[in-house]
Amino acid sequence: MTIAVIGLGKAGLPLAAVIAEAGLDIIGVDVDSQRCNQINNGINPITEEPHLNELIKKHGGKSFVASPSYHNAKNCDFFIVIVPLFLDINHKADFQLLENAFRNVGKILKKGDCVVLETTVPPMTTELYVQRWLEAESSLHLGDFYLAHSPERIMTGYSISRLREFPKIIGGINQESGKKAYEVYAKFIPKLTLVSSARIAEFVKVIEGCYRFTNISLANELYKIAEELHIDFFEARENANHTYCDIHLPSTGSGGHCIPVYPWFLINEMEKRGKHKNAILLESSYVVNEEMPEFWANKIIMKCMKIHKQLKSVTICVSGITFRKGVKSLMNSKNRELVNLLIKKGLTVLVYDELLSRKEIEQIGLTYGRPEDADLEFNSFSLKIKINTEIKKHRKIKK
Amino acid sequence: MTIAVIGLGKAGLPLAAVIAEAGLDIIGVDVDSQRCNQINNGINPITEEPHLNELIKKHGGKSFVASPSYHNAKNCDFFIVIVPLFLDINHKADFQLLENAFRNVGKILKKGDCVVLETTVPPMTTELYVQRWLEAESSLHLGDFYLAHSPERIMTGYSISRLREFPKIIGGINQESGKKAYEVYAKFIPKLTLVSSARIAEFVKVIEGCYRFTNISLANELYKIAEELHIDFFEARENANHTYCDIHLPSTGSGGHCIPVYPWFLINEMEKRGKHKNAILLESSYVVNEEMPEFWANKIIMKCMKIHKQLKSVTICVSGITFRKGVKSLMNSKNRELVNLLIKKGLTVLVYDELLSRKEIEQIGLTYGRPEDADLEFNSFSLKIKINTEIKKHRKIKK
Repeated sequence: MTIAVIGLGKAGLPLAAVIAEAGLDIIGVDVDSQRCNQINNGINPITEEPHLNELIKKHGGKSFVASPSYHNAKNCDFFIVIVPLFLDINHKADFQLLENAFRNVGKILKKGDCVVLETTVPPMTTELYVQRWLEAESSLHLGDFYLAHSPERIMTGYSISRLREFPKIIGGINQESGKKAYEVYAKFIPKLTLVSSARIAEFVKVIEGCYRFTNISLANELYKIAEELHIDFFEARENANHTYCDIHLPSTGSGGHCIPVYPWFLINEMEKRGKHKNAILLESSYVVNEEMPEFWANKIIMKCMKIHKQLKSVTICVSGITFRKGVKSLMNSKNRELVNLLIKKGLTVLVYDELLSRKEIEQIGLTYGRPEDADLEFNSFSLKIKINTEIKKHRKIKK
Repeated sequence: MTIAVIGLGKAGLPLAAVIAEAGLDIIGVDVDSQRCNQINNGINPITEEPHLNELIKKHGGKSFVASPSYHNAKNCDFFIVIVPLFLDINHKADFQLLENAFRNVGKILKKGDCVVLETTVPPMTTELYVQRWLEAESSLHLGDFYLAHSPERIMTGYSISRLREFPKIIGGINQESGKKAYEVYAKFIPKLTLVSSARIAEFVKVIEGCYRFTNISLANELYKIAEELHIDFFEARENANHTYCDIHLPSTGSGGHCIPVYPWFLINEMEKRGKHKNAILLESSYVVNEEMPEFWANKIIMKCMKIHKQLKSVTICVSGITFRKGVKSLMNSKNRELVNLLIKKGLTVLVYDELLSRKEIEQIGLTYGRPEDADLEFNSFSLKIKINTEIKKHRKIKK
């Protein structure tokens, strides 16, 4: 059996590598031909992912061959599609990349083949869209081929261990599809559960994201209230959390292409049905999330007031601009929004990030600088604000 | 050392019993003289609390003496106040019982005494109100006496085990108060943490409740969405939950005198400060919670439509009317709201509850009936709806 993995990004590549390590042959398909070449030469293009280097070195160009062409996957009998799904400016899912991938798979689909969608999607995408795309291009009908959904549950930086140790689910568009896909997936996913439908599998992944999103927003709301009451939120949180309480960490807001995206799948669906009141908690979580950069900008400016300089000549360094610590991505980054907001308010802002070079920061139109060179530094991950100017003054007084 | 425990209700009595069991002398004060007599005769008035019977039998009337008069506590040097705090019709905290208790303690307060508030209160209650009440009645000043807050963390049905096994916190209104109160509490609370202030202790307990309230509302919101998408929420939840995800159980809504009450402490405080936007997630959680009886009423009525009878002659039995399974209380019960709503809609509703007798149900103006005698039964705790009439018909067809 040869398995095709369509999409060799942050989610697809670790999956393909884990399948190869399980002893199966892989044809990887990705639009990025440079990335394909790297893989075929045993070079891992996603260096921040632990253990991926050794797997790509071991299998790349051998049992795992990557190519930008779907043609190379024509003899495969099992297809896994794991390409990104983005939201457009109105928070609506943009299916373009997904549709393109499935139509291309449809063109090489044969009787008896099995297709699995790994991308996290709005509930009912598999049955309403994916099936239709595959049928339209292959001239086959469901029953001739099998179709299932197994939402990826990786987290950049932990992808290999998640695939090996974390529970994963799979659900078919019908019973035979579920069984068929489960049998193959069980060869490389140790903790696999067959759920009763693709729709359930879709919903499971989306509500998991909604849980995280709402709880991050709750932590941020409680942080703001603690601030107002002059309470150390971190001391309170540490003492509140126990077996039955898991108040999350506050932040500048949820970012990335997962957590802040999934709630919209449900909000949109309810709106479409004229039932937007069914999703008001998710909507409020979004409002809280959107306001976090403004909250932090104001807090930073209040701190700047303590510096014995005119506000305009104070230099601020925001340390950490990626959406999450350890992930080299600016997708929906609230830290980047915060930087933009501070600049818009007329402040001088330097940016530092341990994952980005001076050149990379300048390429996105921002000014590189080290935290210790600024009057005030804000670590966007630890939420700590440090005034360097005041410390210098304090030292002078001590002398 | 003799400790006075003011308030021998569902929270105070287990605490007093645990302190007595630790070998300390207790004077309990409660307005209910009948309850005091029971205790002094070794009879436990809160029978649903496991292990409480044996503790009251062992210590009641011996090292633990109860009385309706504060006068009996005049030789105590350590006072614990644990009386209820309710919300008024506008969701504002009604401090009447608390004020009365502290003013009475103030009247017998001596130099060197220590007072601990156990009731969950809005942040800053200890420093803004309790201190003032004690000072006004005792003519002493903070420093002459000690004042701390250690929010009760019990849960009816688990109170004794919670006091023995659960982490508990205590925080002083000043450092000496914290230390002093901690030393005494450590004699009977095994897992005790001294936090940096009474205010932190107040906030910890309130945000713990907010976490639960928001997460119950989130579960209910996701349940409603699942319903709309014809998805089995329980199957989805089971597969979504893991180490990093804890989607709560759906319900007819949060009830009782704790979980739906605490968010208002923060919402009110933010409103007072003109910052109601700081609490929008808590407010939305409240809206979701308020709508749950209506959601279930509609769902039940939709099911009634399946019965081959005119809607008006269908009999519904709601099984479980207390606010939570296993707790004999109707306080803020959404199940009771649901019953009222169904009656208001013109339906015939019977009520059954394993904790309430026919007489007790009739006393609150409802009709007692057994689930199997109704056309449709709704178990408000498991959320299961069962049609009895249809099953009978089905059997007839089989013949």
